[in-house]
Amino acid sequence: MAKGENPKGKGEAARTAITPTRAEDYAEWYQQVVRAADLAESSAVRGCMVIKPWGYAIWENIQRELDAMFKATGHKNAYFPLFIPKSYLEKEAAHVEGFAKECAVVTHHRLIEGPDGGLVVDPEAKLEEPLIVRPTSETIIGATFANWVQSYRDLPLLINQWANVVRWELRTRLFLRTAEFLWQEGHTVHASAEEAQEETRRMLDVYETFAHDYMAMPVLKGPKSAGERFPGAVDTYAIEAMMQDRKSLQAGTSHFLGQNFARASGIKFHTKNETEELAWTTSWGVSTRLVGGLIMTHADDDGLVLPPKLAPSHVVILPVFRDDAGKARVMEHIDALAKELRGARFGERRIEVEVDARDIRGGEKQWEWVKKGVPLRIEIGPRDVDAGSAMVARRDRGTKDKVAVPRAELVHHVVATLGEIQQGLFDRARAYRRENTRSIDARGDFDAFFTAKNEERPEIHGGFALSHWCESGACEATIKDALKVTIRCLPFDLSDVAPSGDGPGKCIVCAQPSPRRVVFAKSY
Amino acid sequence: MAKGENPKGKGEAARTAITPTRAEDYAEWYQQVVRAADLAESSAVRGCMVIKPWGYAIWENIQRELDAMFKATGHKNAYFPLFIPKSYLEKEAAHVEGFAKECAVVTHHRLIEGPDGGLVVDPEAKLEEPLIVRPTSETIIGATFANWVQSYRDLPLLINQWANVVRWELRTRLFLRTAEFLWQEGHTVHASAEEAQEETRRMLDVYETFAHDYMAMPVLKGPKSAGERFPGAVDTYAIEAMMQDRKSLQAGTSHFLGQNFARASGIKFHTKNETEELAWTTSWGVSTRLVGGLIMTHADDDGLVLPPKLAPSHVVILPVFRDDAGKARVMEHIDALAKELRGARFGERRIEVEVDARDIRGGEKQWEWVKKGVPLRIEIGPRDVDAGSAMVARRDRGTKDKVAVPRAELVHHVVATLGEIQQGLFDRARAYRRENTRSIDARGDFDAFFTAKNEERPEIHGGFALSHWCESGACEATIKDALKVTIRCLPFDLSDVAPSGDGPGKCIVCAQPSPRRVVFAKSY
Repeated sequence: MAKGENPKGKGEAARTAITPTRAEDYAEWYQQVVRAADLAESSAVRGCMVIKPWGYAIWENIQRELDAMFKATGHKNAYFPLFIPKSYLEKEAAHVEGFAKECAVVTHHRLIEGPDGGLVVDPEAKLEEPLIVRPTSETIIGATFANWVQSYRDLPLLINQWANVVRWELRTRLFLRTAEFLWQEGHTVHASAEEAQEETRRMLDVYETFAHDYMAMPVLKGPKSAGERFPGAVDTYAIEAMMQDRKSLQAGTSHFLGQNFARASGIKFHTKNETEELAWTTSWGVSTRLVGGLIMTHADDDGLVLPPKLAPSHVVILPVFRDDAGKARVMEHIDALAKELRGARFGERRIEVEVDARDIRGGEKQWEWVKKGVPLRIEIGPRDVDAGSAMVARRDRGTKDKVAVPRAELVHHVVATLGEIQQGLFDRARAYRRENTRSIDARGDFDAFFTAKNEERPEIHGGFALSHWCESGACEATIKDALKVTIRCLPFDLSDVAPSGDGPGKCIVCAQPSPRRVVFAKSY
Repeated sequence: MAKGENPKGKGEAARTAITPTRAEDYAEWYQQVVRAADLAESSAVRGCMVIKPWGYAIWENIQRELDAMFKATGHKNAYFPLFIPKSYLEKEAAHVEGFAKECAVVTHHRLIEGPDGGLVVDPEAKLEEPLIVRPTSETIIGATFANWVQSYRDLPLLINQWANVVRWELRTRLFLRTAEFLWQEGHTVHASAEEAQEETRRMLDVYETFAHDYMAMPVLKGPKSAGERFPGAVDTYAIEAMMQDRKSLQAGTSHFLGQNFARASGIKFHTKNETEELAWTTSWGVSTRLVGGLIMTHADDDGLVLPPKLAPSHVVILPVFRDDAGKARVMEHIDALAKELRGARFGERRIEVEVDARDIRGGEKQWEWVKKGVPLRIEIGPRDVDAGSAMVARRDRGTKDKVAVPRAELVHHVVATLGEIQQGLFDRARAYRRENTRSIDARGDFDAFFTAKNEERPEIHGGFALSHWCESGACEATIKDALKVTIRCLPFDLSDVAPSGDGPGKCIVCAQPSPRRVVFAKSY
């Protein structure tokens, strides 16, 4: 469908703004939502995306709120080099395994004119040591921290970096998996294992709070199994969210690195007792992948649906008029309203208002904002000005579901409704997760849960299975090989999805004792 | 001198916190100011710096204010790939000359285990086309814009990007010239040359406003000579500031690119008359170099001096006490004061307060904050609590120059004094520039102006010379070759530095007619 076309015009009641629908083809629906909302596009550079203004504005809102939460927990921002010398990557054995295999390698520092007039790499300008474009910065930051940390007085050292990173991915998808992406990476150094573990958990909690309170995206949190740990970590914790295709998205991770990177980089400190000890480090990160999570949690068959706290615009006002005289009256009314709305606050932000006075068809204009996911649309025409009211439509309800709100109540109505939408999106996502999560104890039920009913739609399956696991890598691998299902985390708290409680049981694979249920799911 | 040592203790009245002083060795003084204020350091990666928390916080303040100014002038942020295919660089001939010569080239996408167990570049993983780490993004953004722009209705397209860029510099200096640096690059597309030229000038004005109102750094603005243009630009405009060694720093540039990049990238649009035309583009940028400019404009022989509008902390409160009972009383008093100060505003920002209750010597503590450039220091001890007052010291005055301010007036005093400091720094820098700028018409005077009086200190010279120039590249080259002096810009307005006025004259080199004076200077 052409951009801006009215999908429900011409009496076709059943059509949606996005083709195909989620039920028809989920993966393609995702791409079309991204396109219709003008969030991002593939670039000419393999695997790299262009983040367009509407998508970038969502990321800026994510950044601003997370950054404030990091600072409130004592962290400071800094910036470290884009390039990592090859020898740094070699220092930590597990890290090499995880990251050296697919990375962008800088080998030369000059191009020269070639025989045919084009540019060629200058063989004379070969670097003595190749540089890797950072896939993550533990090694380069560790080498720097080794100089910053001398004494227990320098600890804890609590640093965060906002940066771009590159991992040479073969199969890419906008926001979810791209060769280059934007992220933040926290890196901290502590005097004891306990303090480092506390920090790891604290930042996991920050991610959970952000996911729930801002993204309206319910998450389960807990440690990963050994096989799913970050390369070089002692423990990896994650927040995991259910998308609308019932797959799990790892939305953020927090790593307790023990002394592995301190040893590799030589981060040592003098204790109060004048002894010298290796420090303990952590790292934690979230990325532009969160934008993908936001889309797949809330968007519907008419396009993007934005939680108000992260929406670039809270409200779009759509003037309706037939002639210049009508336009003048309506616009005067709207300018005053927009000014009043912008003076009000929703949470810590001022209300962001877009006034769309473009000279295009009203239906086209309305659908554009529906597809962009703006929480509230306000239509005002000459009759509304006369009546002293406005028609308000919510993005979380049907497009035809509009209510007349008296002008005097409008600002209060907008603020209150934004709060209702924020909460409503969270409740809806939580209910969806509950509906599609099952405690399963029999292997046959487990296999059936993860097996598509329709062979042509292999992506359609049950969702999250809460099942017992003996903690052996062999049983984990058995499930992964058979069903492409992995252990997403060993959740701290299952009460929201398994209200009947948790406790010991028998492994779904080998029937050996299991201390607790874990979350099995297909994943991104 | 060791970090934190009191330079003026032990009766040595003449010592300064920074060794050497500006007069003794300006270049080394700069490095020592950066180190003493803990702003940045060189990294293990050749030419790349680590921006430390205090330096990064200044950059964050620069970013926040500029970003708001860009948005207020209608620009939106987006993000484009880090990598530029070699073939893109080849599209614009002048651009190739300017940037292909020294750049980071990615040639492979994998490391593998080598014969000795270390990692080696995998020869099997060679890229079909080398990728350049962006030195600037005109070509990759141009290719993207070619798809975004179809019709005159899509124009103007006003985009900005905050990003890291890499230029393989051989001689680097923290903030001023590094292989990787952080910047913003605006890229806009317009339907006519006039609109693009207006945009170029508008953003130059934004940079000037920012330099004056936030950095307290006076700048001269105007077009560059042809020889100093951005590779591929039709016109380059710059803001140029005088540093304390009287050299000029190019602090920001705005380029009218004509149709050069539109032609290279194929950015075309359908006009209202249904014809197809090439678009007109601009680009403009400032970088972390501004932090270097801030240092060299305001810092003194005791370290950094920060203009309050960009200071990470406006005020540091230093408790003074001898015992635990005293500490408790003083800290209670200080906590209430800090809370009250944080509730007040200076400009659009809340007042940022640091309370330094570390258990180290008072002198050491005080000097640390002097060297970090915090605008105001407030000392409070038990006697001050009793007297209902506090001792306030300004960073722009001598360190012993403290005034007692009654507690009831303190918040008002702080806000008012921050305003005075901001204005005072600008006035001081402007006076310095006036003192070291001369209108020079005789070649002998010109040469003497730029020749060091002391052979051992070749960097000491006159400053800005306002002289006539016939607009020929040959005369420009003559001066450059003889004196390492370049034309910094053809200023729009010289009234602040040449109050006696401007007008036509004769070229300082060839005596041919010159329409106006230009700014000659040594530069960074």
